[in-house]
This record gives sequence, C-alpha cells and structure tokens, in this order.
Amino acid sequence: LDHTLTLTQQQARDAGLDLANSAGIAVVGSNGPYGCPWTKAMLKVENEGLAHVWFSTNTSSRRVAQLRADPRSSVYFFDPATFRGLLLVGEMEVRQDADSRRRLWSDGCERYYPLGVDDPDYTVLRFTARWGNYYHGLSNTSFSL
Amino acid sequence: LDHTLTLTQQQARDAGLDLANSAGIAVVGSNGPYGCPWTKAMLKVENEGLAHVWFSTNTSSRRVAQLRADPRSSVYFFDPATFRGLLLVGEMEVRQDADSRRRLWSDGCERYYPLGVDDPDYTVLRFTARWGNYYHGLSNTSFSL
Repeated sequence: LDHTLTLTQQQARDAGLDLANSAGIAVVGSNGPYGCPWTKAMLKVENEGLAHVWFSTNTSSRRVAQLRADPRSSVYFFDPATFRGLLLVGEMEVRQDADSRRRLWSDGCERYYPLGVDDPDYTVLRFTARWGNYYHGLSNTSFSL
Repeated sequence: LDHTLTLTQQQARDAGLDLANSAGIAVVGSNGPYGCPWTKAMLKVENEGLAHVWFSTNTSSRRVAQLRADPRSSVYFFDPATFRGLLLVGEMEVRQDADSRRRLWSDGCERYYPLGVDDPDYTVLRFTARWGNYYHGLSNTSFSL
C-alpha cells in the first residue's frame, strides 16, 4: 500500500480486519474518573470480524467498575513497525453468564482464575464497534460498522 | 521483579521511569466526540522524567482539535513481552511557539513538514502528568506526581 493513498471505506475495513485478525493485543480505552481517558493493553481473546472483540479480566479490576459505570470505550490495534493502526469506537459490555465464560475459557486460565470457569473474579468483556478509523502512514480513513 | 510483589509508590515511579525512558512509542488517550475515549500510538520525542512527555503532530489533525477542546488525556507506555505498563493521567497542551517547535525539531522532520520548523501544520504537544499507575504482571501500584 502507498502510504499516501486514500482508501475507500471498504478497503479500510478490509485492511483493518487483517490487522485485528493478526493482533494478539489490543489497547482498550475507557472513561476514568474526572473525565480522563484511560488506556490498557489487553490480550485479544477473540474478534468476530470488526463487529465484536472479546476480552477477559478480573471482576475486581478498576476497569470493570469503569465500564459498568460508562460502557463507552474504544479498542485500538496497531503495528508500530509498519505505522498501521485501527481504532474502533463503541461500547463494552461486562458479562458473567455461563455461555460467555465458557466461550473464552481455555487451558491455562486457571493460572489467573484458580476457581476455574465459575471463578467469581473471572469476567468477560464484549466490545461492540460502532465505527472505525484505519490508518497507514499518513493516510487515514473512517468507516461505519 | 516478582510479578505478585506490591511495589511502593517510589518503586513504581522508578520502574515506570525506566519503561518511559526506553520506550519509543506511547499510546495517547483523548476525549473524542460523544464522550468516547480515543487512543493513538505516537512517537515519543522526549520525556522529562515522568512529569512531561513531548510529541509532535499535524496541526490539522482531529487529535489536535480534540485536545484544544478538552486537554484531559493520558499517556501509556507498555511492553507486551514482559506485561509491564505505565499509565500517566493528566493534561495535554497544544503548543506552536518557536521555542517548543525548535525543541522537538530534528533532521528528517521535513518529510512530514515540508515548510520546515515554521510549517503551520507542525504542532507540538506537551503532556503534564498528575498521577500514574505502573503494573507488572498482576501487581499494580498508583502514585502521585
């Protein structure tokens, strides 16, 4: 891709999806106290295209309390080596139902949640994107979802 | 460091400073439209301890417009390989004075700002941290600045 090329919305969605699919980590943005934006790198457990991104975290974490109080959030994937990035903006849902827990559970999760898939400190986060912005070099394109 | 060790505020400041000093990139959080947190990876040009972090960007960028409207922001450094991260929360100042421009200018900046150090599309951002949170593995410690 030419760094100065302007992409169509569909080209930006496709390139952003490639980046999201290949990423192991995303940076989650949330609204912290006093109107300040917070960010935190989290393991991306699963993405359903660009529509939803799934994470797991500790129920007791400050981030969960923030997202319960204000679900507005963003999920950001980037590759510093190639100056590519994808910002998805939307809402994060805090889930503790059995289906969501089982969906994300895998061998090794016991290290973080010793009581297993029903550990009360195990929480699932499901992000829903409303729109996105993909950039590569100096070119960036916003698209709806 | 033991991943489960609780650090003192000073230990967290020191470890966070090591991370900030060695980082080439930071993720900047800002308040986007409709109360949504936005994030963007930016080259860290300079950090003065943990008190200030300096960036440069395009005057015409949406991020500059956001930060002028609402300076509340965060600067986040992280190392996915070691599960370490530093979140700094504070305010971002948009600067276009000659001293700030010259402070961050270096050979090669002409690629982005063809008119040189006085290019009207060249803007300097100076972040001031109010407090921070450093984590390593499952341990995290907040500190004042």
